[in-house]
Amino acid sequence: MRHFNSQPLDSATFKKILSAAHMAPSVGLMQPWRFIHITDQSKRKDIWQLVDNERQLTADAMGEKKEQFLKLKVEGVLQCSELLIAALPDKREEHIFGRRTLPEMDLASLSCAIQNMWLAARAEGIGMGWVSIFDPEELKNLLSMPSSSKPIAILCIGHVDKFYDKPMLLEEHWTSEAPLEDLVFENEWQGS
Amino acid sequence: MRHFNSQPLDSATFKKILSAAHMAPSVGLMQPWRFIHITDQSKRKDIWQLVDNERQLTADAMGEKKEQFLKLKVEGVLQCSELLIAALPDKREEHIFGRRTLPEMDLASLSCAIQNMWLAARAEGIGMGWVSIFDPEELKNLLSMPSSSKPIAILCIGHVDKFYDKPMLLEEHWTSEAPLEDLVFENEWQGS
Repeated sequence: MRHFNSQPLDSATFKKILSAAHMAPSVGLMQPWRFIHITDQSKRKDIWQLVDNERQLTADAMGEKKEQFLKLKVEGVLQCSELLIAALPDKREEHIFGRRTLPEMDLASLSCAIQNMWLAARAEGIGMGWVSIFDPEELKNLLSMPSSSKPIAILCIGHVDKFYDKPMLLEEHWTSEAPLEDLVFENEWQGS
Repeated sequence: MRHFNSQPLDSATFKKILSAAHMAPSVGLMQPWRFIHITDQSKRKDIWQLVDNERQLTADAMGEKKEQFLKLKVEGVLQCSELLIAALPDKREEHIFGRRTLPEMDLASLSCAIQNMWLAARAEGIGMGWVSIFDPEELKNLLSMPSSSKPIAILCIGHVDKFYDKPMLLEEHWTSEAPLEDLVFENEWQGS
């Protein structure tokens, strides 16, 4: 796991990273992103506990990879300078543009915003991790979110001692990468 | 609608844009992206027809904004140099990492890949549009895709005469933008 160090993130850089999110394209310009900045330390610990609970449940579902999975830590939630929840808002059903047959385009737009943040952070030399190991209903309750909203990402942002040379899950031999050529087809599906 | 011009996209730039997609982060490194490059002109016309059909159905669902919606054209599908379908693969249920409680993280990863393409294209002075106005089941059948895969985006890529100064849906007065400050909360939900 990437190690966040104790250097605080200055607010101008944090704002720059959030602004990159807000410049993302979105379906029908619905801007389906909301961010909850966690500055209360006891709430941060509650969130870490949710993540650690789900980490155990995911591990139990992993079968023979359980022990290897448990070696991957989620301490970044506690250690990072800034903790941010990214969520889909309520009242999304009002937006039909580009979503009549693909309602999940709201998540696609939110994800574009998060990828913008990732690139903006990296360009500033700042590390960012996206944790999706949590129960969204429990997190929603913890943050007093409306029932039709949905938290999608726990984002850990802050200074790091170093970046990985290649993706962490490759360095940890969790899996291997597929070459791009295997994933591009012509005119119809050619996957195995 | 952005106007693609007739200048063909060179294959090196196209490859560079696809490579940007493939450098995206993904949940559990599952790389849930597949791309179908449409080079057959009759298949391109069939895809445009699917989009135009859904455009009518979406317009019918728009109520009082129907006429305004119909002014937005989807001719880019026919005019762009390169047409690409981005899809989620089959067999995604094998991947539990980061998806036990949030299975839609595969779409989040695919969307990060598409956002990478958007930024890479723009950096090369190339236009890209993401069309989500289509019936995914019909497109799946047209491209002989497995039943558990899912097409998510019709991507139109190519040279354009000019870029918009601001998002097209603002220029067309379709909607207005929310300021970032209204979308960032502290420690709990504070939306209206």
